[in-house]
Amino acid sequence: MDFQNLDRIKAFDELKGLKPASIKELLSPKRIASSWVEAGASLRYNWAAMPIDEEHLRVLQALSDEAQLIDKYRALLDGAVMNTGEGRQVLHHLARGQVGKPVIIDGEDKRAFYEQELSEIKEFAQDVRSGELVGSTGKPFTTVVQIGIGGSDLGPRALCLALKGWAAFKKIPTLDARFISNVDPDDAAQVLSEIDLEHTLFILVSKSGTTEETLTNREFVSQALQAKGLRPIEHIVVVTGKDSPLTDRYNTLDSSLFGNGVLTPFFIDNYIGGRYSATSAVGGLIISLAFGYETFQMILSGAHQADVQALNPSIGENAALLDALIGVYLRNVLCLPSTAILPYSQALSRFSAHLQQLDMESNGKSVNRDGEAIGYPTGPVIFGEPGTNGQHSFYQLLHQGTDIVPLQFIGFRHCQSDQDVTVQGSTSQQKLNANLVAQIVAFARGKEDANANKRFGGERPSSLLFANRLTPELLGALLAHYENKVMFQGFLWNVNSFDQEGVQLGKVLATNVLKGSKEDPVLKSWAKIFGL
Amino acid sequence: MDFQNLDRIKAFDELKGLKPASIKELLSPKRIASSWVEAGASLRYNWAAMPIDEEHLRVLQALSDEAQLIDKYRALLDGAVMNTGEGRQVLHHLARGQVGKPVIIDGEDKRAFYEQELSEIKEFAQDVRSGELVGSTGKPFTTVVQIGIGGSDLGPRALCLALKGWAAFKKIPTLDARFISNVDPDDAAQVLSEIDLEHTLFILVSKSGTTEETLTNREFVSQALQAKGLRPIEHIVVVTGKDSPLTDRYNTLDSSLFGNGVLTPFFIDNYIGGRYSATSAVGGLIISLAFGYETFQMILSGAHQADVQALNPSIGENAALLDALIGVYLRNVLCLPSTAILPYSQALSRFSAHLQQLDMESNGKSVNRDGEAIGYPTGPVIFGEPGTNGQHSFYQLLHQGTDIVPLQFIGFRHCQSDQDVTVQGSTSQQKLNANLVAQIVAFARGKEDANANKRFGGERPSSLLFANRLTPELLGALLAHYENKVMFQGFLWNVNSFDQEGVQLGKVLATNVLKGSKEDPVLKSWAKIFGL
Repeated sequence: MDFQNLDRIKAFDELKGLKPASIKELLSPKRIASSWVEAGASLRYNWAAMPIDEEHLRVLQALSDEAQLIDKYRALLDGAVMNTGEGRQVLHHLARGQVGKPVIIDGEDKRAFYEQELSEIKEFAQDVRSGELVGSTGKPFTTVVQIGIGGSDLGPRALCLALKGWAAFKKIPTLDARFISNVDPDDAAQVLSEIDLEHTLFILVSKSGTTEETLTNREFVSQALQAKGLRPIEHIVVVTGKDSPLTDRYNTLDSSLFGNGVLTPFFIDNYIGGRYSATSAVGGLIISLAFGYETFQMILSGAHQADVQALNPSIGENAALLDALIGVYLRNVLCLPSTAILPYSQALSRFSAHLQQLDMESNGKSVNRDGEAIGYPTGPVIFGEPGTNGQHSFYQLLHQGTDIVPLQFIGFRHCQSDQDVTVQGSTSQQKLNANLVAQIVAFARGKEDANANKRFGGERPSSLLFANRLTPELLGALLAHYENKVMFQGFLWNVNSFDQEGVQLGKVLATNVLKGSKEDPVLKSWAKIFGL
Repeated sequence: MDFQNLDRIKAFDELKGLKPASIKELLSPKRIASSWVEAGASLRYNWAAMPIDEEHLRVLQALSDEAQLIDKYRALLDGAVMNTGEGRQVLHHLARGQVGKPVIIDGEDKRAFYEQELSEIKEFAQDVRSGELVGSTGKPFTTVVQIGIGGSDLGPRALCLALKGWAAFKKIPTLDARFISNVDPDDAAQVLSEIDLEHTLFILVSKSGTTEETLTNREFVSQALQAKGLRPIEHIVVVTGKDSPLTDRYNTLDSSLFGNGVLTPFFIDNYIGGRYSATSAVGGLIISLAFGYETFQMILSGAHQADVQALNPSIGENAALLDALIGVYLRNVLCLPSTAILPYSQALSRFSAHLQQLDMESNGKSVNRDGEAIGYPTGPVIFGEPGTNGQHSFYQLLHQGTDIVPLQFIGFRHCQSDQDVTVQGSTSQQKLNANLVAQIVAFARGKEDANANKRFGGERPSSLLFANRLTPELLGALLAHYENKVMFQGFLWNVNSFDQEGVQLGKVLATNVLKGSKEDPVLKSWAKIFGL
């Protein structure tokens, strides 16, 4: 297999020669109907409002083929070391199902390992949800709080928020799911002020077992539990790596708090990066506790279906692949530096924040997978808020600003809950979707007006991810679609999408500050301002 | 007064000739100490890590003077028609205090009008908080839910979140403040599932009284109240314009729900745009109900102090002015298309979302205030999440991505609550700020490394807004700082920062969709996908 920088791929040269097609001119009922691509689990992608015509599609397919995108994905699935910097396999797909060959590392079948963890999560969640496992004063757990940051926070948080309406509609009993992430003590203080500790189970999530924010918040929470006369050991469970200091309860910072381990740790490994860990135990435990293990299984099933769909070599049948390729055209040929992700679903209110991490941390790189500087733009800035809220906020710039921002809409035919109200002849859900539809057309076509201030240039590209309803299965597919899109773009840019060296320098300097930063007058000056 | 496009101002030509200064080389203890500028109410701005030297400052001052930025601000304060497209005055400053001359419109002293509304808010909030005014079954109100979208949602929501920790620390009795914004029925359904309607007061906020999302959610809530045997008229209060259909309770969509008006409407006017309305009754009522009128007064006082500070013609003594000018250098000379706002305070978790609206809706324009097309970039894309969370998310791209994103940090010496924990010799607050300090230096200086993947180029510009503690007064100053910065940038770009014509087309098309969009086959095709 051949790993080449994007600018050394012939088809990319051809792509660079292609002007954007006029969306305004092309957009027609026929085009809309023929621009659907399957993403798996009934999620579908539509590119009709992208500046793409038949010629672009031909070259994008050639680019995919020449860059061997599917071969690379298959190699990743089969256990190739795709995280080159860290010398590791990349196995988040395997956590939701076997797609490629068996992956054996150090004599361990990794699929079997993930299945083992799933069965432990299943059992534990059942024990907690049934009231068999209780807190240190014998009270059942009604609240579960995840203590984690970055990948241990954003994905699981976005998913839990997305499941609330669905669970209410399905009348599935739930535990209240909360999150503490920030090292800012106001974060933990606020969450603790709103819950009943006697009924609360905490999940401490840190792969390395050394994440500063998470260890600090563990201490915050442990002290609060003790202040209420509760035994932390019976209220805190751990998701961590097998080599992590957290697995040995006697070897932890606050070992005095722990007696014999009552709650078993749940394990994750080094082959699933934080931002890809929502479908591992990192997301699985809290989702299974809050919404039931079966709900988490549905998410895994949807993600697995999307993973299988993403193996299709034809861009007409592989949404993640085409979405990735069009994104590279927008970024590297049309030179557009940001992308907005706009879910028309309040349940996805924090989904864009998760995708911001997923995309920007994966592909915000300036060196290729061999550590050589590259000379073209990689990952764009990602941002977004749910519609219709965003329409009353930043859409002004999207419509009439001087820069063009490509858009990705996410929409569902039905709302989650089926609680709705009819006003002036339409339901809220119909109004929501009428707005979504209107925005696609407004951005594409624009509007002439004698008054330049009321003129809309149009030709602003958007795509749509669509499904009937936001179910757990669909949510899994949506998550995996983006993970796979980001992966394909990483292959195209020839970057390692699975490390994050860019976060290290800040960590080192922060430690220096806390140590007094004597040899660094600049650091010391800043520190002094903050009384450090 | 002379309104010129940016590219017709001589000092801008000079600015264009100035290369960025090397932050890496310049950053020193002396520079850090001498780069402070007052923003009002003890909020301070530091530009030491910006690519700016003495020469830049000289030209920026010349630009400010030549563009008559302070004169324009003063004219605005004195009641000039600065919202040119809509032919209106811009009076959000006046809502928090008299800075300029008295403004009389249609015979009404506008300051007196705002004061009258304040005194009504004060009285009403006292009645509710004391338990004198109760719900329709005689129960005191413990929860207040704002129904509004865009400016009626993001600012007030960000402020309420920011006040929670402070109120807890000060032991100020609070009502639980919630928000329903999206027309997605899942939004209202979710909020209603978490509250006790008998104890809930709703605030319906719509200046025009015709906002589709808000009227629809009113109906959603009214039906829910009735289903519980509660009388909507005694649970819903209105903040609206004097000409709005909502002021006449018999003239509303669901007039059958209302008897004689028990709750008086609160009034806003057309001179305060939605995104500038957090310090009007739009934010004032919910803040006064949830945290007490005195808390809202402190916010107003802080904002007023920042407004006064922003009158200073010297860039060395006017943070909003210098922040705006440096922003234009970054945007129009260095051509950087986005800006990240990074508060190191969990209390500001939704503040960036408010600023995203404030900035992008105000200055995301392509025509000048006279309606003529302009040929330079205006408002950038704004995004951000609180630190340290963001460090574990999108900072990878900020440090090592191919594009440079200017950063604005917001930091406080102390946390809000003074609940803290010491782990390994430092408190959480110290760790939080050590990280902030480390990031400023990491972005500025970077780091050499033999391994290119571990190399940081540095020279990534950042500024800092700093204060001792996030109090209501400081929060007001912070809010006003950004409003005034955006205003000065609007003056520089010669755009009207106070209208939002870019949101109209979508509204019209959405109405067409709901009407059947018969004559528009493209709109109809999209609508069909969603079953419309």
